[in-house]
Amino acid sequence: MTDTQVAEIATSRRREATRQRLLDAAAEVFAEVGLDAASVEAICERAGFTRGAFYSNFATKDELFLELAGRVSRERVAVVTERVAELARDGVEITAQSALEMVQLVLGETGDDRLGILLMSEIRNHALRDPALAAAHLAQDDELRRSVAQIIADIGDAGGLSLRVPPEEAAGLMLTVWESATVRATMAGLDHEQVRGLTNAQLAGVAQLLIEPR
Amino acid sequence: MTDTQVAEIATSRRREATRQRLLDAAAEVFAEVGLDAASVEAICERAGFTRGAFYSNFATKDELFLELAGRVSRERVAVVTERVAELARDGVEITAQSALEMVQLVLGETGDDRLGILLMSEIRNHALRDPALAAAHLAQDDELRRSVAQIIADIGDAGGLSLRVPPEEAAGLMLTVWESATVRATMAGLDHEQVRGLTNAQLAGVAQLLIEPR
Repeated sequence: MTDTQVAEIATSRRREATRQRLLDAAAEVFAEVGLDAASVEAICERAGFTRGAFYSNFATKDELFLELAGRVSRERVAVVTERVAELARDGVEITAQSALEMVQLVLGETGDDRLGILLMSEIRNHALRDPALAAAHLAQDDELRRSVAQIIADIGDAGGLSLRVPPEEAAGLMLTVWESATVRATMAGLDHEQVRGLTNAQLAGVAQLLIEPR
Repeated sequence: MTDTQVAEIATSRRREATRQRLLDAAAEVFAEVGLDAASVEAICERAGFTRGAFYSNFATKDELFLELAGRVSRERVAVVTERVAELARDGVEITAQSALEMVQLVLGETGDDRLGILLMSEIRNHALRDPALAAAHLAQDDELRRSVAQIIADIGDAGGLSLRVPPEEAAGLMLTVWESATVRATMAGLDHEQVRGLTNAQLAGVAQLLIEPR
């Protein structure tokens, strides 16, 4: 590689590191004070950067928070796909009965997602009043649903699973129940283990409804 | 009745009228600017009352908005129960297959609920950060679910309906899907008819999953 190429790669990585650091700082500030009160100033201060660094990465605060929501979404999908791959590697038998229960188990293995829960609730709330934010948020949502649907379909093919509805409808229902259960449990002030326990119980119930009876 | 009793009743009715007018004004202001920006001053101005009138009815703004949320909840349940009673009076036959579809039809007959949708989203969002508000909101939610569960159970008894899960679980799932569908459709900028159409379609899908196959 030429000196120029090395320099370009270094710049690109530095830029990406700055971007991620701003996202991390925004996540912290947001978790503390909420979306409206999380000012660009506060985020820059937390990240240790100037407003200039902020605005050369994000056009608006909204854009940053949408990027953060996307990051949360992608992390959720990654946890699921990694878990499924892990089980496949361990040679865990995927039976028709347990496939959706596995998805439920997998969706329930996510780390403490309190930030994601707060963030999604605020974005949803703002999106109800902001068509541009709404369009971007719905697109992210659709992407998450398609990813989960693909996992459900793959598990189904492997294990001979019979669903009563198409994979995308099953994915939509599970994600809806998952979101509702985690929000309610978090609202009730339960700790992470309790939130996961309650959510898993509700997901198991939905999974039972979705599997074709034999 | 004595003069005193008449005077007491008049005072009580005037007080209730003031209360309802403040709630109506709050609903309007809130729909325009959101919960945080809907100040006590703005609400009083819209209602044509003094701050004194406000604070002799509500201890805090939070209390008023919780009362508003409760009113929205009760209106939703009332629409459902009235519709069911109406169908019973008209002698509409309640068959096992259509009972949950009827509940879905009934839940879908609610008037333009944009205010309710915005309000519930904001209260839910605030409740995630406010334990007192959370407790009150969850209690209201439980009450709505129990009411819908009772309706489902009554329809079930009358029509010999077989559910795959207990009425309260069925009610919880239908309300969760209904809320999610209406929020997404509203966010997408659809009009009232479209919101209802899409929501009904999703509820019909869930109803099918909930009914015991024969």
